[in-house]
Amino acid sequence: MTKSRRRRPLPVPGWIALKRDGGELPDDAIRALINGAVAGAVPDYQVSALLMAIVWRGLSPRELATWMDAMIASGDRLQLDDIPGRKVDKHSTGGVGDKISICLAPLVAACGVPVPMMAGRALGHTGGTLDKLEAIPGMRTDLEPATFRRILRKTGLVLAGQSRRLVPADRLLYALRDATATVESIPLIASSILSKKVAEGTDALVMDVKVGIGAFLPSRAAARQLARTLIDLGRRAGLTVVALLTAMDQPLGQTVGNASEIAEAIDILRGGGPPDTRALTLRLGAEMLVQGKAARTIAEGTARIAAAIASGDGLDRLRRCVQLQGGDPRCIDDPTRLPTARHQTIWKAPRAGRLVRLDAGLIGRAATLLGAGRLRREDRVDPGVGITFHAKQGDALERGQPIATVHYSQKARLESARPLLAQAITVADEKPRRSPPLVLERLS
Amino acid sequence: MTKSRRRRPLPVPGWIALKRDGGELPDDAIRALINGAVAGAVPDYQVSALLMAIVWRGLSPRELATWMDAMIASGDRLQLDDIPGRKVDKHSTGGVGDKISICLAPLVAACGVPVPMMAGRALGHTGGTLDKLEAIPGMRTDLEPATFRRILRKTGLVLAGQSRRLVPADRLLYALRDATATVESIPLIASSILSKKVAEGTDALVMDVKVGIGAFLPSRAAARQLARTLIDLGRRAGLTVVALLTAMDQPLGQTVGNASEIAEAIDILRGGGPPDTRALTLRLGAEMLVQGKAARTIAEGTARIAAAIASGDGLDRLRRCVQLQGGDPRCIDDPTRLPTARHQTIWKAPRAGRLVRLDAGLIGRAATLLGAGRLRREDRVDPGVGITFHAKQGDALERGQPIATVHYSQKARLESARPLLAQAITVADEKPRRSPPLVLERLS
Repeated sequence: MTKSRRRRPLPVPGWIALKRDGGELPDDAIRALINGAVAGAVPDYQVSALLMAIVWRGLSPRELATWMDAMIASGDRLQLDDIPGRKVDKHSTGGVGDKISICLAPLVAACGVPVPMMAGRALGHTGGTLDKLEAIPGMRTDLEPATFRRILRKTGLVLAGQSRRLVPADRLLYALRDATATVESIPLIASSILSKKVAEGTDALVMDVKVGIGAFLPSRAAARQLARTLIDLGRRAGLTVVALLTAMDQPLGQTVGNASEIAEAIDILRGGGPPDTRALTLRLGAEMLVQGKAARTIAEGTARIAAAIASGDGLDRLRRCVQLQGGDPRCIDDPTRLPTARHQTIWKAPRAGRLVRLDAGLIGRAATLLGAGRLRREDRVDPGVGITFHAKQGDALERGQPIATVHYSQKARLESARPLLAQAITVADEKPRRSPPLVLERLS
Repeated sequence: MTKSRRRRPLPVPGWIALKRDGGELPDDAIRALINGAVAGAVPDYQVSALLMAIVWRGLSPRELATWMDAMIASGDRLQLDDIPGRKVDKHSTGGVGDKISICLAPLVAACGVPVPMMAGRALGHTGGTLDKLEAIPGMRTDLEPATFRRILRKTGLVLAGQSRRLVPADRLLYALRDATATVESIPLIASSILSKKVAEGTDALVMDVKVGIGAFLPSRAAARQLARTLIDLGRRAGLTVVALLTAMDQPLGQTVGNASEIAEAIDILRGGGPPDTRALTLRLGAEMLVQGKAARTIAEGTARIAAAIASGDGLDRLRRCVQLQGGDPRCIDDPTRLPTARHQTIWKAPRAGRLVRLDAGLIGRAATLLGAGRLRREDRVDPGVGITFHAKQGDALERGQPIATVHYSQKARLESARPLLAQAITVADEKPRRSPPLVLERLS
């Protein structure tokens, strides 16, 4: 009789116990766990227990690098070597009113640095660039790798969703983390972000790590730790990462909502737009140009981005990119063609005083309830709904002065959002204070 | 149009996050989680993430009481009120060579205290009373509630497995904990043990909490914490719990293996057997008699148990119980009728010296590899295999003197166990030391 060749089951409980007790997983174990999770050989309930143990105990730099490599190896990697120049992408940890990608990518491309941008969807209280882009009628973001490369080569930028063949391990892990309260882990966040960036083929990444009550990681210490982890992990994977910690206490700019944020991004490209959105676009753009070797200093980069706004080159790039991705380019020149909500109502100052609070976290949640975001992955977003602000934190207000316009399609949704808005917006007596800087810190 | 009545999903990720962050779960959440887990509404991957968060953060006394009540409410409760007297059970956290239940229950019953014992199976390196009992040809341990009650009424004891309708939540949670390295949690262990004891209808419980390298919780501090948790949790559920911490550094008695442990238990009932097995039987029996109001003091209880041995009443009870449960009663009077292994080999002292180590943990693992226990739940045990010891820790040995006889059925299994035995058994030069007491501590 020949010896039984029954395959031995993986010693997964032992590995989970090792991590639970604060130990370090061997590289082989990490690869077997990630591969097993993707192949279905390691069941979800073991993966989620391991994820909670990682939230608890963390991952060492060596474990994290192996973990990310195994995630990347679970799918395809895009080859962008035939596109000349250093490719530079930007990624934000997620904010409220953060439409920067939409104006930033065309401007950086206009300055000669290719931007192979793969963006995400709204989940939780923060918006998603893909949902914003799809407010443009016809715009497609699910691009085949060949199309992705072709558009990038033609226009210097591409604004796409993540291909299903790119890092399937992240899709699986992310869905599980979302359902099991294991999202909030620095190494898990870092590997989720960077695995996709490495796989998309970018050479450098400028990270916008949000800090404050509207951010995913509210504390500056946690944001800094994430930034450092991203920089170190990127270095191990051959990807240069620069991180800015930026304020996310109030929404960025004047608009929260998919179509209205596209309109604000177009305003920026036309030389207008709110000062904070413009300032952050210039700064992130300058960082990207430095990474892409198209500027030697931040000052020079800032000047080049400003010039690409003034010349209309940025707007032109966005128009061509939208057209190549199936979107209606007339929206770029006439944003009134973008979808609008059926109704609107004005949110007025209940008393005279200063706008002391415009809580980005609560406003993000209110916008989600209006239909701008998702409570569940399967929810559909409503492109026209959202909130437009007529004041920023620190502004003096008369009684009855409009603070915001709420664009809504269903009365019930407005009513569900109203208590959150009431809680988010505070008018009180207070001396004017200098508002904190938008860019808090730079790490590299 | 009527309002959609789509049932809202349970906010499970929020509850997991609450526990992850060290918060306390509301009672409603705990009940919804346990009920949802049993009904399949809360998927396994959420339950396992919660379990890992509980391993990390623990459960408060209030949370734990609600958790256990919800587990008990998931199934039936046995009614034993029609059986006169205070019912008393004994439970051990699991040791190596621990056959006490088999001689203890008949002795306590012989002294007039009913013992409704529901026991478990071998898993990991520790043995299981059910597997030992099933070494008796014909013996059945899966009893219907009516049969359980009838045998208990007739003989004063019953030695059964847990009915499938009793605490189904524990079966589900235990399988998940076993697969996700979330077994090692004091509140989860305590609720798993006590939920079944409350549901089986016992009035009091004597816990044998093992301490040492062969125990599930090796450290005395952890064992003490488990004992205190069991006592407090029992009090909240109306169940009196007394706990003894007992040494589990070397195997208990002389035998490890299913049939050979039955034989050792019979030896005890006949007035023989190894001193440690006898001593622990007397002490645990005395505690049970005090709980059952059949003795006022431990000394009086000990004398009564010793008398039940001397009179043969204990042996008679076991014989009747075995017969009523379908087992061959002739084995009780002639243990050579019990199954035996095909082969045996003598493990000899490699040198003269003192037996300084007889590591219960490693010996338990070796016995499991021989086939006495289970590596996986679906494994079948081999009743005849095991290890018989001819020396205990501290004994002086000549070179070549037999330390143990290994009973095996397959050569390959013997070979896989050999390195563990070599590691487990150490002979060295050492002064004789007083061996530590068997009963380390009593808590109530």
